[in-house]
Amino acid sequence: MSPDAPDVPAGRVRVGPEPGYAVEVGAGLLAELVERADELLPGRSLAVVSDSNVMPLHGAPAADRFRAAGRRVSTHVFPAGEASKTRKTWSILTDEMLESGHGRDAAVVAVGGGVTTDLGGFVAATYLRGVPVLQIPTSLLAMIDASTGGKTGVDVRAGKNLVGAFHRPVAVVADVDTLSTLPRDQRAEGLVEAVKHGAILDAGHFEALGRELGALLDADPERTAEVVRASVALKASVVAEDERESGYRQILNFGHTIGHAVEAAAGYRLGHGSAVALGMRAEARIGEQIGVTEAGTADRLDDLLGRLLGPVRASVGVADALAFLGADKKVRAGRPRFVLLAGIGRTDPGEGWTRTVPDEVVEDALRRVLDAG
Amino acid sequence: MSPDAPDVPAGRVRVGPEPGYAVEVGAGLLAELVERADELLPGRSLAVVSDSNVMPLHGAPAADRFRAAGRRVSTHVFPAGEASKTRKTWSILTDEMLESGHGRDAAVVAVGGGVTTDLGGFVAATYLRGVPVLQIPTSLLAMIDASTGGKTGVDVRAGKNLVGAFHRPVAVVADVDTLSTLPRDQRAEGLVEAVKHGAILDAGHFEALGRELGALLDADPERTAEVVRASVALKASVVAEDERESGYRQILNFGHTIGHAVEAAAGYRLGHGSAVALGMRAEARIGEQIGVTEAGTADRLDDLLGRLLGPVRASVGVADALAFLGADKKVRAGRPRFVLLAGIGRTDPGEGWTRTVPDEVVEDALRRVLDAG
Repeated sequence: MSPDAPDVPAGRVRVGPEPGYAVEVGAGLLAELVERADELLPGRSLAVVSDSNVMPLHGAPAADRFRAAGRRVSTHVFPAGEASKTRKTWSILTDEMLESGHGRDAAVVAVGGGVTTDLGGFVAATYLRGVPVLQIPTSLLAMIDASTGGKTGVDVRAGKNLVGAFHRPVAVVADVDTLSTLPRDQRAEGLVEAVKHGAILDAGHFEALGRELGALLDADPERTAEVVRASVALKASVVAEDERESGYRQILNFGHTIGHAVEAAAGYRLGHGSAVALGMRAEARIGEQIGVTEAGTADRLDDLLGRLLGPVRASVGVADALAFLGADKKVRAGRPRFVLLAGIGRTDPGEGWTRTVPDEVVEDALRRVLDAG
Repeated sequence: MSPDAPDVPAGRVRVGPEPGYAVEVGAGLLAELVERADELLPGRSLAVVSDSNVMPLHGAPAADRFRAAGRRVSTHVFPAGEASKTRKTWSILTDEMLESGHGRDAAVVAVGGGVTTDLGGFVAATYLRGVPVLQIPTSLLAMIDASTGGKTGVDVRAGKNLVGAFHRPVAVVADVDTLSTLPRDQRAEGLVEAVKHGAILDAGHFEALGRELGALLDADPERTAEVVRASVALKASVVAEDERESGYRQILNFGHTIGHAVEAAAGYRLGHGSAVALGMRAEARIGEQIGVTEAGTADRLDDLLGRLLGPVRASVGVADALAFLGADKKVRAGRPRFVLLAGIGRTDPGEGWTRTVPDEVVEDALRRVLDAG
């Protein structure tokens, strides 16, 4: 740990069915990466994958430290942005790794935000039919959600994350120091997934986020590490029961059925957090409308998400969003399915944790959140 | 079973660690596909994937039967040939499935040879992060080897099968009646993998192949079903111990280190069986040369493979083959690794079932098999 690192104890959360993997959250952890790699990936050659923003900040310095410790290391950079999360970028990264001569004794080290952890994870999942991946999230969204749980993948024209694989990381190392360089609105976007974890599982977490909002948006390392750890622990409790999302894990998709449709309809020019915020607000209204969600829940979500993000303008029409809903992964027998809340901190069990909903109710909820911004 | 089917009892072999999956081998099994799908894939929409040769013969008729039984079915055809086993074809098939509206309750039914079972399996492995696949091999190669064991993937410029995933089928249904329409030389190609199973694991199987060669090349259904079942059982014994190829399963790569390099150097215009035959012959010579393989083993392989295939002309230079060896999946610390025999029916334990070999020994063995044809 660097001598001037704030005094934040590194805490670990274990994820997944036994034996699972550790998610380590704290300050100054990047300085200890060589030791972590010695422990988790002994003897392996390493392919460091980062986007064009994060490579100079964190990816290349990490690669230099691995090299200095005697590792065979290659670096692979792609243009920053969700538009890079494609089969094409995945192909390029894979081919670069092959050209670098990485064999089955290689591992991927994905350093960056959610696009990087999803994309780097999918490269690892399919490289020579699978090599290990060490996830190093450097955005709040990736720390709280994307890097944990083993989901990897890319977007295609038909929608987000429609191609991918489940591929457990060997570990997740979340150094909260990396968040200080992030723009404030990106931190706000990341906290949306923490709001989701509170909404579906833990009213106390939801309320704590409301109280600590200022400190979190200012990237206070201690408060941030606590929130990330609490959120990861909530997610871990779900993943442990249903890693492959055959049932219970679907509750993590609260806000995402509509969120993904809105994101796709906006051509991925809307932040993931903003899209999920719109999705949660719409899905809470849907739940209230059909009588499974406690009255007032949508207002509480509106209030907290409004304080977090301000007004969200999606520039998406209701008809476009409805068209993309049809391509959602949760579609069964041709109808989209929704995770609905029972109230703040409680998910409606539905029929296997999801429900279908009358079209006009969906349309009405979409109209309210999309027109209101 | 059709009334005029030969009297071949359908036999099942179970593959993989518990609970595993069944490989069913017999005559007339395609007529029972609807019942198998009801049992294995209840309620799922089905995407039937076949190449342009097999779709009219077996894919479309199977789809028609599923449809008549009330299933939601789509068909997806790609141009026959190893040249189609690419990320591009995988992308097209995936996008077609998305356009057909298949959700997470879909399954892939791959009907065809090894290209189809590898490609269809990889589509299934990555579609919405994984849907089930039912493998229906219609070539001897796919029955004996490709469809069983859960390996899926595609070729890339750097080599064969370098991108893919492990994805267990729900079952493999091998109807030996489909082999009667195959050209004789394709049956011969397929039997090469049976020779490999004998060479690495079972001298009795190796000898039986020599005795029954005529009946097998004539596609005698009873003899063929017996050989397929015996070969799958040998492979299953290996996969059960090491599904993910972290150690012991590597013995199934005997002949493949050089075989894949020769195949890639020939631009995939050489049959997989012919390439593996060259590879086994070269790797047996390598083993004899460095003193781990019993003297005379290479001659026995030359003899049986010569009777099976006749002379094989690869039209590949030694230097080209050597260049492609460097990209092999088994490369570790920059050097290709080889599975070597102790003798017929016995694999050398090596260092974790593989060994590195001096470059000049590899070059010498390559020269012998490539120049001799």
